[in-house]
Amino acid sequence: MRATNGAGKNLGADRQAVEVPREWYNIVPDLPSPLPPAIDPVTRRPVDEAKLRRLFVGEVARHEFAGERFIPIPEEVRSVYSIWRPTPLVRALRLENALGTPAKIYYKNETVSPPGSHKANAAVPQAYFAKREGIRRLVGNTTAGQWGCALAFACSVFDVKSTIYMSRSSYDSKPYRRELAEAWGAEVIPSPSERTAVGRSALAKDPRDMGTLSLAVGESQEDAMGDPTARSAVGSVFNFVLANQTVMGQEAVAQIERLDEYPDSVIGCIGGGSNFSGLFWPFYHEVTAGKSLKEVEFIAAESTAAPRMTRGEYMYDHVDAAGRSSLTKMYSLGHTYVPPDIHSAGLRTHASAATLSLLVQHGVVRPVAYNQLDVFEAGTLFARTEGILPAPESAHAVKAVIDEAKKCKESGEEKVILFNLCGHGLLDIESYRAYLSREMTPGDAAPGAIERAVAEAKALHPWLQQTGA
Amino acid sequence: MRATNGAGKNLGADRQAVEVPREWYNIVPDLPSPLPPAIDPVTRRPVDEAKLRRLFVGEVARHEFAGERFIPIPEEVRSVYSIWRPTPLVRALRLENALGTPAKIYYKNETVSPPGSHKANAAVPQAYFAKREGIRRLVGNTTAGQWGCALAFACSVFDVKSTIYMSRSSYDSKPYRRELAEAWGAEVIPSPSERTAVGRSALAKDPRDMGTLSLAVGESQEDAMGDPTARSAVGSVFNFVLANQTVMGQEAVAQIERLDEYPDSVIGCIGGGSNFSGLFWPFYHEVTAGKSLKEVEFIAAESTAAPRMTRGEYMYDHVDAAGRSSLTKMYSLGHTYVPPDIHSAGLRTHASAATLSLLVQHGVVRPVAYNQLDVFEAGTLFARTEGILPAPESAHAVKAVIDEAKKCKESGEEKVILFNLCGHGLLDIESYRAYLSREMTPGDAAPGAIERAVAEAKALHPWLQQTGA
Repeated sequence: MRATNGAGKNLGADRQAVEVPREWYNIVPDLPSPLPPAIDPVTRRPVDEAKLRRLFVGEVARHEFAGERFIPIPEEVRSVYSIWRPTPLVRALRLENALGTPAKIYYKNETVSPPGSHKANAAVPQAYFAKREGIRRLVGNTTAGQWGCALAFACSVFDVKSTIYMSRSSYDSKPYRRELAEAWGAEVIPSPSERTAVGRSALAKDPRDMGTLSLAVGESQEDAMGDPTARSAVGSVFNFVLANQTVMGQEAVAQIERLDEYPDSVIGCIGGGSNFSGLFWPFYHEVTAGKSLKEVEFIAAESTAAPRMTRGEYMYDHVDAAGRSSLTKMYSLGHTYVPPDIHSAGLRTHASAATLSLLVQHGVVRPVAYNQLDVFEAGTLFARTEGILPAPESAHAVKAVIDEAKKCKESGEEKVILFNLCGHGLLDIESYRAYLSREMTPGDAAPGAIERAVAEAKALHPWLQQTGA
Repeated sequence: MRATNGAGKNLGADRQAVEVPREWYNIVPDLPSPLPPAIDPVTRRPVDEAKLRRLFVGEVARHEFAGERFIPIPEEVRSVYSIWRPTPLVRALRLENALGTPAKIYYKNETVSPPGSHKANAAVPQAYFAKREGIRRLVGNTTAGQWGCALAFACSVFDVKSTIYMSRSSYDSKPYRRELAEAWGAEVIPSPSERTAVGRSALAKDPRDMGTLSLAVGESQEDAMGDPTARSAVGSVFNFVLANQTVMGQEAVAQIERLDEYPDSVIGCIGGGSNFSGLFWPFYHEVTAGKSLKEVEFIAAESTAAPRMTRGEYMYDHVDAAGRSSLTKMYSLGHTYVPPDIHSAGLRTHASAATLSLLVQHGVVRPVAYNQLDVFEAGTLFARTEGILPAPESAHAVKAVIDEAKKCKESGEEKVILFNLCGHGLLDIESYRAYLSREMTPGDAAPGAIERAVAEAKALHPWLQQTGA
């Protein structure tokens, strides 16, 4: 089924005759080795679906443990997806010209979603299943605000209430994403707050506490667990979230094949791992199913402020900074590690998705890390050639793409490079101003900080690290 | 050629098998009566192409006087359009449900362009033709910032310098759009400035002058005219700008026919008139060419702060507030009329496009006017049902759509309503905050202000009003 599309080809774009996917793809049955289970640190036993159902919407918890390769997407979810999906697959002809590379660069443009990023792909099903199960309110947390906005948007469309705990520092300094969530009807609460025991305890210690991601996670979970009509909603790391995001990669497979192309490299930035996984999983499936036309390289771009995959250790660790969560086998910098305050809040985490970590461990995914000066240089070049201002997180992927394209210039290889432009930077414009006015620092990890936090995390649960899973 | 598209139909969206248009449509030869020419107030003679070529890029000036119905779009322009075009045509199923209307509501989603509005459709050709003609710099002016951002984006892609005069009040109070233009490499200058005689004169009178649109227009034109390597670039009102915008309507005709639908009503908001004209002209052409499947009603939504079409007079007037420009036959509120400071800066003008005015005069277009409280109520409902936050300007169209859909609820008519969602409000979120926190006033015109300004304008050039053109 390779219809040649003359017009689309000339213009370097294709979004024709591609439909909104009918299933989410679940990578778990195709992994090269079994996924180590998350462990409850109290019972020392694997976390099961029953435990997750107390926190998440039921159908969502079921998906987290799903063994099937394909999960049907309800028509109601597809209908909302179709507001902005399928998203354009665009050839970056002007970036290619600026680099003088023989490589062909394509990007999946996820900036066109109503909240401006791929996060909407995971928020919509959580809101839909909540509505279907009679859940009246979803509770989330956000730092940069991308997930908070996506959740507020999705809940608004399905008429579910949303409560967003936003760290006080973001709440005060980034009013635009907060006000956007409020325009969709969300209740946005600065964290720490008086609403929860976790918040009150923090405020008792320091009434001027500016909050952290960990605190916001703690408050949102306490709020959701304390209200039988509410559940928690999450925007990354979990298998079901990553599976939701495969609508991007499935569209991209169909779109790039219609252009008679196939990628040599698939690239994305990684925080929790949801945008990169959503793009590359379906290409990985092509490989494991023997349908891939090439040996595809998967490249994950992270920040040198939080270089889990390039400098962390593959071990069991808490996903939250406070060390209260269950333990996940993953590349971690140690849950006590605090990344420098870079402009890509979405990548500022010590933890990473279990599936992504396993694939890095197996050498299926190759990680690279960049400091934010190089990242904003790449993002600015992309904006000035292709016109779309990348979110600071997405600009990490752009930097990796430029590096690969430059290698092709040296080697003369005409590689096809595909990457995920997972969000726009219209509400992050202040960080571009800081870059352009030379007020920005590289934001690298402080010397010794990672080694200390990794050692601390490994020492915490010695019984677990020895399981060798 | 009416292929039924099952999938698209179910999902209420269609962007398949529609290509980026190959021609711009020029309405001038299809107007119900000849377009009265613009008049030079000094020579009292019609403005000709030679005069316009001193101000604008040559090819653009030629298009302003073009007699042909279709103007080819260069492939280089189509290639840049294809970054975001064709834009989605989406059925607003969730808004229909909220209203309980039997009407079917479709919107053309122009919010997906890199700068976030339809303005990019006109900026790209001006930048391309400038490059082709060896023009090194385009000079524009902006108040809300939409045109400034679109021009900065287009110039960046074609490697042409851009200079944007932005009124001091917007420059200081709306840093986001200014910083966005700067990220694309534009030089943004607060107006009044020391760069021009017009600016220096204003600053000599009042060093703290916060600027006006008129001042910014004056400065940008003086700057462009004084540099042989530069030209002026404009974002609305002129025929060539409106023709550039017909890529929207041409796509919409093809998309809605593929869904086996045809609009009863085509709706847009009007400032200068470019977004509404770009959508409705191709449907008007269907009517004049005898290809239309229905009798289509064209509805233009304006602000009660600047109600040109509903309360102005069809007469010759200056398009700039200072009364220095050529004179255009149009619906005007009088060039000395100063609209209240509403949140839709893009609609705050006394003037309107000559073509649109002629069509209102002939009864082809029906104007309606709304105050901003009603407009933001409509915009908020749209955001909470369909997910996309409309720019305040676009929310005027949403209000008109809701009114039409409510009429259908009363009458039981299953009308098909199509409107232009011409821009998103992500960088206007502060105005939604003002609305939601009840800090907003209706923003209606002050009693007597319009009547005074109309009388003043009519008295200024009595020789011209008598031509009866």
